[in-house]
Amino acid sequence: MDKTLKEFTAGIMEDCLPGNSIDCVILGYADQELKILLLKWKDENLWCLPGGFIRKDEDMDEAAHRILEMRTGLHTVYLNQFHTFGSEQRSKVNSAMQHQRITQMLKRLHDDDSRFIEWVTQRFITTGYFALVDIKKSDPSPDFLCDKCEWKALSDLPELIIDHNQIIAKCLDHLRIQINYLPIGLSLLPEKFTMKDLQKLYEAVLRKPLDRSNFQRKILKLGFLNRHEKQMRGGAHKAPFLYSFNQAKYDELIAFGIDFF
Amino acid sequence: MDKTLKEFTAGIMEDCLPGNSIDCVILGYADQELKILLLKWKDENLWCLPGGFIRKDEDMDEAAHRILEMRTGLHTVYLNQFHTFGSEQRSKVNSAMQHQRITQMLKRLHDDDSRFIEWVTQRFITTGYFALVDIKKSDPSPDFLCDKCEWKALSDLPELIIDHNQIIAKCLDHLRIQINYLPIGLSLLPEKFTMKDLQKLYEAVLRKPLDRSNFQRKILKLGFLNRHEKQMRGGAHKAPFLYSFNQAKYDELIAFGIDFF
Repeated sequence: MDKTLKEFTAGIMEDCLPGNSIDCVILGYADQELKILLLKWKDENLWCLPGGFIRKDEDMDEAAHRILEMRTGLHTVYLNQFHTFGSEQRSKVNSAMQHQRITQMLKRLHDDDSRFIEWVTQRFITTGYFALVDIKKSDPSPDFLCDKCEWKALSDLPELIIDHNQIIAKCLDHLRIQINYLPIGLSLLPEKFTMKDLQKLYEAVLRKPLDRSNFQRKILKLGFLNRHEKQMRGGAHKAPFLYSFNQAKYDELIAFGIDFF
Repeated sequence: MDKTLKEFTAGIMEDCLPGNSIDCVILGYADQELKILLLKWKDENLWCLPGGFIRKDEDMDEAAHRILEMRTGLHTVYLNQFHTFGSEQRSKVNSAMQHQRITQMLKRLHDDDSRFIEWVTQRFITTGYFALVDIKKSDPSPDFLCDKCEWKALSDLPELIIDHNQIIAKCLDHLRIQINYLPIGLSLLPEKFTMKDLQKLYEAVLRKPLDRSNFQRKILKLGFLNRHEKQMRGGAHKAPFLYSFNQAKYDELIAFGIDFF
């Protein structure tokens, strides 16, 4: 085992809380599809969510920001807890064969360092955070265990370790409900966009087609969009209106939720 | 220290995950007010949320149900996670004086059992669950550390330990947002109720007055209420309509959320 890795694992056991971890569902949007940032384990065709541990001297939220920044290079993004996963069997939900592959990979990578393997395979309660980021501004980089860090379409996920499919599914359920009371789109769409662009994003999250005029009426009523004047150029009368987010109103809705009553 | 308590604390250290706890915000509704179930520590005028630890062989959700049942006698209630609190300073947010009182109380109660005091005062990440229960069906009972378990009005909370005020505040924020996309009222209101009763409940959660006709229009549109025929008795034409929850529709909305788009 190379020295850097040995120091790295010793540091984790020394500095981090045992039994608590963080998993980040980092979502972006491109080609009218939601994408997720995944890591591929070294020498195994097994993928996982970016994650990590909580330092003893660090808030859990700080740890989530640190992990997000390490994997994406981004530090000021919308990042929020969505659920804590505490099932006793959560590390064992996948097949026995996968369990064996994971154990062998850990042994190989950590040169049979049984103390660390025991630490890292103890029961973990993991808190899921999700981030919505601008893919174009992200600079994905893998961690020690991994050789790839890539954006993957949600519609075509590779094989994921343990319960990471469930964590993603729970996050998407959360997002689908949340879209009803929080605005979405900042950092996912370009600065100026059409109503159709926004509708496509909502349809990608909700996974259903929406009625155009109904969508426009409802979204405008929420008041977080600025409409821009059309440029008076040749043929421009046929161009659709462009919109941008009203940052102040957007932030207010993120903080307090959209008021139904 | 009496034997039962000694066995109890030894059992906790042996059987439970270190560093992870659960705190339950158990809410009821009476006299047009939200009430919360709190415990008072023995010989101290310090109150806390019902809480506990997670057994090594138990899911975190099971632990929350177990704690709720031990404190209320209720086992089939709406119980859900709302947030996990992982601030490094969370056990120290209250005054130094309170910190001293807590330490002294633990020492007194546990006869200076330093091993348990160290265990119980280590850094804990706590997951907040909230339950909405029928006060009349509950049978509050204190735990080992406490001599009282009582319903308290949210508008008149006693002094709470460490960050329990913040946990309650976060839960109420969550509930205020959630009421916009999930139905509320089952187990909080009697089987049949008037529109005014339901509006008062919503006003108690949202902490603001609502317009009567607007509220009625919006709530009826969500479709989770059954309206009952008025009884044809003397003067009955002046009596308000009675409503009850349509359990199937209510459950569907709880599971999938109220669809805005």
